[in-house]
Amino acid sequence: MTRFKLTIEYDGAPFCGWQRQDNGPSVQQALEEAIEKFSQQRVIVHGAGRTDAGVHALAQVAHFDLDKDVDSDTVRDAVNFHLKPQPVAVVAAAAVPAEFHARFSARSRSYIYRIVNRRAPLALDRGHAWLVPAPKLNAEAMHDAAQRLVGLHDFTSFRSAECQADSAVKTLDAISVKRHGDGISLAVTARSFLHNQVRIITGTLKLVGEGKWTADDVTAALEAKDRTKGGPTAPPDGLYLTRVEY
Amino acid sequence: MTRFKLTIEYDGAPFCGWQRQDNGPSVQQALEEAIEKFSQQRVIVHGAGRTDAGVHALAQVAHFDLDKDVDSDTVRDAVNFHLKPQPVAVVAAAAVPAEFHARFSARSRSYIYRIVNRRAPLALDRGHAWLVPAPKLNAEAMHDAAQRLVGLHDFTSFRSAECQADSAVKTLDAISVKRHGDGISLAVTARSFLHNQVRIITGTLKLVGEGKWTADDVTAALEAKDRTKGGPTAPPDGLYLTRVEY
Repeated sequence: MTRFKLTIEYDGAPFCGWQRQDNGPSVQQALEEAIEKFSQQRVIVHGAGRTDAGVHALAQVAHFDLDKDVDSDTVRDAVNFHLKPQPVAVVAAAAVPAEFHARFSARSRSYIYRIVNRRAPLALDRGHAWLVPAPKLNAEAMHDAAQRLVGLHDFTSFRSAECQADSAVKTLDAISVKRHGDGISLAVTARSFLHNQVRIITGTLKLVGEGKWTADDVTAALEAKDRTKGGPTAPPDGLYLTRVEY
Repeated sequence: MTRFKLTIEYDGAPFCGWQRQDNGPSVQQALEEAIEKFSQQRVIVHGAGRTDAGVHALAQVAHFDLDKDVDSDTVRDAVNFHLKPQPVAVVAAAAVPAEFHARFSARSRSYIYRIVNRRAPLALDRGHAWLVPAPKLNAEAMHDAAQRLVGLHDFTSFRSAECQADSAVKTLDAISVKRHGDGISLAVTARSFLHNQVRIITGTLKLVGEGKWTADDVTAALEAKDRTKGGPTAPPDGLYLTRVEY
């Protein structure tokens, strides 16, 4: 048996999310079917992060086991061949020790959220960013307020009501907000995230960028430990899983 | 009468190119129809550069004349409203003097060509970059060889056989090739370009990146003044009109 680690890029738009579900095609299912087509073996693909419907990945990580001995470059090329024409691509495949687990071995996950802050609709980035046509967002104020979220906190106000994690206590390692032209990108890193956490953080910081909230309002929302006190959930279009570290 | 200057972003994939043609939808036609819908006036939209089928723009520039007096922000928003759902967006609109001509007043045009240099297919950038799965391209060698093209030259070897320009003598102001991860981007600026010039330059520099051609081979192709001595034409997917200066 060989365990393979895959690094995967995908466009989340046509999928119901990473995880296999009854209500539509998932990235996990697309990969499992492609692997079965080339190996004639049914496998389970374990992902590092369960991205939601419409959320993208530049470098999702997953693992699976194959009985037969195959070169990792062959795995990458054969899976990619059978994934066509779906917008999922195995960027890298590598044989890893049997102890490696894409989800449980992960030390940190990084996401980027892309906002385009302009009046005009998106032509080239449709589905790949959140269009915020409001007046110019104050990215510096968003960055400063975001620092209130760094560290160990109870993130109840920043997780979906449906979040299944036992505890809302998490450590946010780093968050930054930067403007470049009419684009604003928000980068976050943590060991793990709660359901919708990055999108709720983004929706909340947008309120700060608009001048509707201050950094103190962000602290107050955090301390309330009540989802109804956090900001709205930003749409999935702008969210990318960019890195998983082991 | 008011002359308006538009700055336009578009995804070239669904279009037969910028220019109105009988064989399919064009960006020019999309704009002319949207303008007519909001103003009840038939207009001709003059563009700065005639991008080909599949070629994108971050900032194409165009102008047109309206009889009625309209605020430029209203022009931008109304044209965008009527452009939906086509992937064309007016990023900015401004009233300009009647002497302004999008094509003839332009002092320089800049393009970027995006290559993704990896084995895996494109998932997120499909149609938005040229996938070159070959061994790692030497971007430094490409950059060095590209400098042979800077300045005043007869670019006959680097224009389409169907190019209708009277003369192939053009000045290339600047060209650079940079690698960032598995992406390579080529940036060029000139007063004007010949038909397919950037795509043939890119196809030629790819040969250099692969080690099949040297910088001297690029010089030899230039001096031959014969299209058959230039490199192949790169696909439209990776090409973006990024800036027009006046």
